[in-house]
Amino acid sequence: MQTRIEHDTMGDVEVPSEAMWGAQTQRSLQNFKIGQERLPRAMIRAMGLVKKAAAITNAELNQIPQELSHYIVDAAEEVISGKWDSQFPLVVWQTGSGTQSNMNCNEVIANVANQKLGNPLGSQKPIHPNDHVNRAQSTNDSFPTAIHVAACLQINELLIPAVQHLRDTLDQKSKEFSDIVKIGRTHLQDATPLTLGQEFSGYVSQLEHGLKRLQQALSGLYELPLGGTAVGTGLNAHPDYAEKAAEQLEILTGLPFITAPNKFEALAGRDAAVFASGALKTLAASLNKIANDIRWLASGPRCGLGELRIPENEPGSSIMPGKVNPTQSEAMTMVVAQVLGNDTTINVAGASGNFELNVFMPVIAFNLLQSIQLLGDACNSFNEHCAVGIEPNREKIDYFLHNSLMLVTALNPMIGYENAAKVAKTAYKEGKTLKQVAVELNLVTEAQFDALVIPEEMVSPNVK
Amino acid sequence: MQTRIEHDTMGDVEVPSEAMWGAQTQRSLQNFKIGQERLPRAMIRAMGLVKKAAAITNAELNQIPQELSHYIVDAAEEVISGKWDSQFPLVVWQTGSGTQSNMNCNEVIANVANQKLGNPLGSQKPIHPNDHVNRAQSTNDSFPTAIHVAACLQINELLIPAVQHLRDTLDQKSKEFSDIVKIGRTHLQDATPLTLGQEFSGYVSQLEHGLKRLQQALSGLYELPLGGTAVGTGLNAHPDYAEKAAEQLEILTGLPFITAPNKFEALAGRDAAVFASGALKTLAASLNKIANDIRWLASGPRCGLGELRIPENEPGSSIMPGKVNPTQSEAMTMVVAQVLGNDTTINVAGASGNFELNVFMPVIAFNLLQSIQLLGDACNSFNEHCAVGIEPNREKIDYFLHNSLMLVTALNPMIGYENAAKVAKTAYKEGKTLKQVAVELNLVTEAQFDALVIPEEMVSPNVK
Amino acid sequence: MQTRIEHDTMGDVEVPSEAMWGAQTQRSLQNFKIGQERLPRAMIRAMGLVKKAAAITNAELNQIPQELSHYIVDAAEEVISGKWDSQFPLVVWQTGSGTQSNMNCNEVIANVANQKLGNPLGSQKPIHPNDHVNRAQSTNDSFPTAIHVAACLQINELLIPAVQHLRDTLDQKSKEFSDIVKIGRTHLQDATPLTLGQEFSGYVSQLEHGLKRLQQALSGLYELPLGGTAVGTGLNAHPDYAEKAAEQLEILTGLPFITAPNKFEALAGRDAAVFASGALKTLAASLNKIANDIRWLASGPRCGLGELRIPENEPGSSIMPGKVNPTQSEAMTMVVAQVLGNDTTINVAGASGNFELNVFMPVIAFNLLQSIQLLGDACNSFNEHCAVGIEPNREKIDYFLHNSLMLVTALNPMIGYENAAKVAKTAYKEGKTLKQVAVELNLVTEAQFDALVIPEEMVSPNVK
Amino acid sequence: MQTRIEHDTMGDVEVPSEAMWGAQTQRSLQNFKIGQERLPRAMIRAMGLVKKAAAITNAELNQIPQELSHYIVDAAEEVISGKWDSQFPLVVWQTGSGTQSNMNCNEVIANVANQKLGNPLGSQKPIHPNDHVNRAQSTNDSFPTAIHVAACLQINELLIPAVQHLRDTLDQKSKEFSDIVKIGRTHLQDATPLTLGQEFSGYVSQLEHGLKRLQQALSGLYELPLGGTAVGTGLNAHPDYAEKAAEQLEILTGLPFITAPNKFEALAGRDAAVFASGALKTLAASLNKIANDIRWLASGPRCGLGELRIPENEPGSSIMPGKVNPTQSEAMTMVVAQVLGNDTTINVAGASGNFELNVFMPVIAFNLLQSIQLLGDACNSFNEHCAVGIEPNREKIDYFLHNSLMLVTALNPMIGYENAAKVAKTAYKEGKTLKQVAVELNLVTEAQFDALVIPEEMVSPNVK
Repeated sequence: MQTRIEHDTMGDVEVPSEAMWGAQTQRSLQNFKIGQERLPRAMIRAMGLVKKAAAITNAELNQIPQELSHYIVDAAEEVISGKWDSQFPLVVWQTGSGTQSNMNCNEVIANVANQKLGNPLGSQKPIHPNDHVNRAQSTNDSFPTAIHVAACLQINELLIPAVQHLRDTLDQKSKEFSDIVKIGRTHLQDATPLTLGQEFSGYVSQLEHGLKRLQQALSGLYELPLGGTAVGTGLNAHPDYAEKAAEQLEILTGLPFITAPNKFEALAGRDAAVFASGALKTLAASLNKIANDIRWLASGPRCGLGELRIPENEPGSSIMPGKVNPTQSEAMTMVVAQVLGNDTTINVAGASGNFELNVFMPVIAFNLLQSIQLLGDACNSFNEHCAVGIEPNREKIDYFLHNSLMLVTALNPMIGYENAAKVAKTAYKEGKTLKQVAVELNLVTEAQFDALVIPEEMVSPNVK
Repeated sequence: MQTRIEHDTMGDVEVPSEAMWGAQTQRSLQNFKIGQERLPRAMIRAMGLVKKAAAITNAELNQIPQELSHYIVDAAEEVISGKWDSQFPLVVWQTGSGTQSNMNCNEVIANVANQKLGNPLGSQKPIHPNDHVNRAQSTNDSFPTAIHVAACLQINELLIPAVQHLRDTLDQKSKEFSDIVKIGRTHLQDATPLTLGQEFSGYVSQLEHGLKRLQQALSGLYELPLGGTAVGTGLNAHPDYAEKAAEQLEILTGLPFITAPNKFEALAGRDAAVFASGALKTLAASLNKIANDIRWLASGPRCGLGELRIPENEPGSSIMPGKVNPTQSEAMTMVVAQVLGNDTTINVAGASGNFELNVFMPVIAFNLLQSIQLLGDACNSFNEHCAVGIEPNREKIDYFLHNSLMLVTALNPMIGYENAAKVAKTAYKEGKTLKQVAVELNLVTEAQFDALVIPEEMVSPNVK
Repeated sequence: MQTRIEHDTMGDVEVPSEAMWGAQTQRSLQNFKIGQERLPRAMIRAMGLVKKAAAITNAELNQIPQELSHYIVDAAEEVISGKWDSQFPLVVWQTGSGTQSNMNCNEVIANVANQKLGNPLGSQKPIHPNDHVNRAQSTNDSFPTAIHVAACLQINELLIPAVQHLRDTLDQKSKEFSDIVKIGRTHLQDATPLTLGQEFSGYVSQLEHGLKRLQQALSGLYELPLGGTAVGTGLNAHPDYAEKAAEQLEILTGLPFITAPNKFEALAGRDAAVFASGALKTLAASLNKIANDIRWLASGPRCGLGELRIPENEPGSSIMPGKVNPTQSEAMTMVVAQVLGNDTTINVAGASGNFELNVFMPVIAFNLLQSIQLLGDACNSFNEHCAVGIEPNREKIDYFLHNSLMLVTALNPMIGYENAAKVAKTAYKEGKTLKQVAVELNLVTEAQFDALVIPEEMVSPNVK
Repeated sequence: MQTRIEHDTMGDVEVPSEAMWGAQTQRSLQNFKIGQERLPRAMIRAMGLVKKAAAITNAELNQIPQELSHYIVDAAEEVISGKWDSQFPLVVWQTGSGTQSNMNCNEVIANVANQKLGNPLGSQKPIHPNDHVNRAQSTNDSFPTAIHVAACLQINELLIPAVQHLRDTLDQKSKEFSDIVKIGRTHLQDATPLTLGQEFSGYVSQLEHGLKRLQQALSGLYELPLGGTAVGTGLNAHPDYAEKAAEQLEILTGLPFITAPNKFEALAGRDAAVFASGALKTLAASLNKIANDIRWLASGPRCGLGELRIPENEPGSSIMPGKVNPTQSEAMTMVVAQVLGNDTTINVAGASGNFELNVFMPVIAFNLLQSIQLLGDACNSFNEHCAVGIEPNREKIDYFLHNSLMLVTALNPMIGYENAAKVAKTAYKEGKTLKQVAVELNLVTEAQFDALVIPEEMVSPNVK
């Protein structure tokens, strides 16, 4: 491999000739051979956005020359676009502030810009990675700003639409199924009836609440640390910089970013990310319920509950021919397990700041963005490959409904809880119908039974 | 032990003569000899409130006679007051719907009321635990309603005031310490200066955000399942019951309870609790940072950082005489560890509903209320026994400030990052001051150095 | 309340006249009003055992007079017996080393002993809580020693027998059910058959592995920190003390305790507890599978899988008469959720030691012992109230078996995977039996089908 | 993109012309567009090993022709070598049994083998992915077998050597530092002295216990599910197959694999993985302690504890020139946070099996292997880039030692705990030395003090 010599404050480093990164990135590559997990695209994009916003703001405040700013902005846009993703080779398991990834971004942008200005890679002229690209920034404020920007973009662009689509599909199913009366199940045991539409409406409501919780989490993520620089004081930044840079990010993304009211918290705590993970794990809990219900209701085809049919997308077994499995539910519930684990990681990391900085930032970024991505993708996949194709198995639903003993609950107001219990138990023991037993025990007449026990009338508040 | 015979739908049971509970409570006592963890006072109080609200509403809707309602209300008020706490002997590890604790409450209230009406314990007359006390309810809606009511009361009455007090104390300290310039620390390493007041302002801001997150979590908890009855359909309830009962609970507590818009979710999901635990764990992460910072800053007295003095509340060691330890921080961080674990429990439990019901309700109630209680109590204890007594050790703070090499950062705008790095490194290697080295290297004059490196001016955005 | 004056190194304290505890306990009571969680009986007993072993060893090594040792031993035995449990009022949320609980124990033993010697409470004469009862100890070694002793006793006396009983019951069921061929289920979907006995044998094997893992965890817990004193060096202890005290604890308990080979680890790490929690959470995972399988197999009675009948222990619903629920499974799975959360707490706490000490000891003790207690009690409860009464529902099992399409797998070796798939799919689509379709498609003759598809022969390796 | 037509039991699929995979892999690619996480190299290698062992065993048992077996073995060896890694494009978030990845492996091996035999890709002749490559296997046994094989290889080849190296380095440091007496710290507060070598010996002991725990975890992972086929019964396998295939894997890997004694557990439980994760998280807890201690002891350089110097590997800050940070500790503690989260994921996934199968296998494989890789790599990185270069700062260590008040503990046996406390407190309050105060208070003479308070003699049991 051909190399060139770069240097930083610690001396010279050999960097691959073609690499757009510089000395500090190279040092990190050599010092942190740990795993293969890299910061995701969303994070690279967000770092590019932060650099662009900073460059514009610095020029506006006369901290760097207009012309240099233009070149930085151009280069940052290429980073934002994904053009230079291959030039971000660092793993998550590096310095806990993300300094090396921040420097990676500074170095790439400086090199791209300097190259456009006709200078060789590594020249650091006229644009210096620290003095210009990183102007008025520290990793300590720009990296967590990028985390917030990345999370907000991914939640808004990927996750919310995905949840919304799944919600819409389930809502449509709920309406389609509004006339299908089925047996309810509590404790996995037969209970009083409801409609299949009502059952699905619960899923819809869970997702609607989930969307609201995402908005609540976003409100904290919109507060940006940028401007705090090294320890929160804003040293080496212009007094107007923080606010203007946040405005710039609002303009660039269309999201309502503001500068964090307290920069000491903004650097040292990652609470907004911890809370956002709390919203994500709650969404995961909802999706777990939904995916589980659907696979159980579709269990069988002959020896399970079998009230639903779900799409057959692939052969289910490498040994059992003709088997079809609820694989979208399985992918979803595995995603849920991952999100719950990511939440633990984020909790531990988020609780571990010291003094002026939290140094678990790359691992927080990695887990938070993974949770968002997986939930978003899984909602889309589940929606497209499962939810839209759900169909009721009306024969099975009917069969169960009319066999259930829990229809007896409708007799409570007339014969009381204890007598009703006797009816159900006797029917179960003797293999009879509820009506047979209720009449035999002289608790009701046949006519009364028929008037009271109407599953269709048991699916809403019914007492006058 | 003397006993009386009670019966339920499964037959006769011997109950201690003096017990206010009945057959179903007794069965649970016998069938679930698991651990010693009981539902807390807050939960008993909330169950009492639910029964009171239901009785009032049922009377209003002519579902039970006014007179019976009055007796139920009276008895419920005694439960609310704590008078009958000893009559709630069941452990958390029972049926997953909380049925047995709900029946325990129904039985106690029926017995208290019937006794007042001159009837013996266990008579179930004129007031029947199911038909009257539990009227228009199922455990499936009344128990999770009690969880929401208990959590909301505890958050509002205990936790929010406790966080607020701690916030106020820290805010006062922040103002008191606003002129004390100290060295910052990032990565545990010396960094640029800030004021001690700024450092504390970060804690204040964390708690203020925490309070906001508690409000966000409350908004979901204010939605009450009551009225869904067995499976969410409201079977055996009056159409106006759900809304009126929620209004009643608003009146009784002063909190803005509303009836959950979707009762199927309200019974089968416990997402609002999962999300509330997300807000609690985020608060825990904040408190961990605060408690850790304070104990580290108070470390020593002679071989640590020693920038703060904290109150000496008790002898610190059973073997090392005169030792004083940051015990309030330790209690706090242990509480944090517990809350993070409780969050895992709640996540697992909350994600595990099936069909029309989540049957992990007692364990959710137990952990959620424990987290609230512990965080509230720990904030109060930490506030009273530690925070209010925090004093700066000005000598130590000054000593560190003037020795730090990171003041060199103030030279960046003038001599550039690389030269500044050379100054710091040389000073460290040669044991010199920054000024000595900077002048020796001809990077600045003494006068320039003095004009630029003024710690007091490094604590705010300083670039023009 | 009448009080007496006690003092410690920080001055005078008012203590309730009748309290057996002293000044330091009282300070803790006043300084830590956090929650209500106390160290469990198992921990008090273990602290008593440690004090007894220390006193015997100290006398043997001439560190305290024989006579004083006798009195300390007598008093410690009363603590061990549970006689003084009410005198251990401190909560878990105290100093992180457990110093205050250790002093509580020292104070109670000193008072009990001094009282027997005719001296008033609080006299500290002739037996001093620190100089005699705590002789050659620090909280830092004696408290974690008590954690290990308590955990080992509880695992050996409670948990292992409970798991063993459940294993035995399930093993007996497995043998009873060895001839019952039933449909298998993978992905919740019908699969090839197995016997009910085989299914239960999986549970038995899980528990057997669980027992082995408990032994593996015990091997680390048997290593005792005692003798490390304050920081691991053994300062103020006799060189033979550590080994002899461990031998003494072996004698007192019958368990193979040894002195930890490295006392610096033994004080500063709680890794053995973290690993023990790892064994407990694995057992919890096994029990979750078992409890879940059983409740699903018992689901119904008419609208579920219904292959098993489980005991009816209590009325299942406060609104649905006659409902019977799998409540023992529910209690078990709630315990599992708790144990998984406790594991998170223990992980966080165990990872958080600094330098010479881990100061999360009370919270580790609390969670570890709670997990042991809950798992042990839940196994016993599940065994007695559910497992022993499990009965197969042979009609249901047979019905499912003969309807399943997955019997087609037996045709693989003859007609190949793809043809077999065609048979199953066609049968499903056209509502026919496998045999009909297989013959219609000319893949086998009827006789061949009958010779190959024999569920009873599909329950073991069958290829020659 | 050019494509070819492949088919499986569900019909035709277009597959890229050059792809070595087939129809089922392609379906999965289309149906599961979720995230980017793929099964790691270790898992692909292990699947190759399983296929090779199966082919050899099947030939031996006359289940497939020798010649076909040879071709399968050849192709499997190429998979093992990594040659075809690019042909394993599936993500973790697929069917929960890993069926699609198992089929991916079957398809690749069949195509590689058939191509060598001169047949086109997708011909499935003479070697069929199901009937030959997957012979006597189901995903349900072969995939979890691959998980066990992968984990055992990675633990033995990567993790154990890495931990061993770090242990050896720390052990060497411990010996080098055996004469350096330093102040101990408990509760972050000054305590009695120990040697720096003793402090490091604690780390060594933690890692030695960690290695033992890995062996304990391995013992369960060595039990292989292979031979259980679809539901544990071994249907369609030869009675000798399970044992012989395990022997074959022992031969191929040199690891003591055996066939799992109970195949029903082996398919439906993933407890051995859950327990292995328990050993990994315990190791993580140990490493957290070590990495934290080292970064705190190296904190400063001028305003921290500063007792250690660690290597300077890269510039520490993008804004603060000359800053050097404990980045290897940070990478390590971030890995720890990840491993703790992965443990939660594995717990949730491992506890969630139903009936004859656990369908959270890919997510378990992914997290378990990630934890192993990260811990192994992080130990190597920490060892090479930090531990080997640790040097004591003797001046700082000495300075702290002789200033500490806790040397007073050495006076306990002579003057008693209470007097010693008075000495320490007075010295602190009045800014005096212990000796001054002790003599002034007439508790000891100067000579006595000098004879008793010798830090070098306080680092071991000292009482006669």
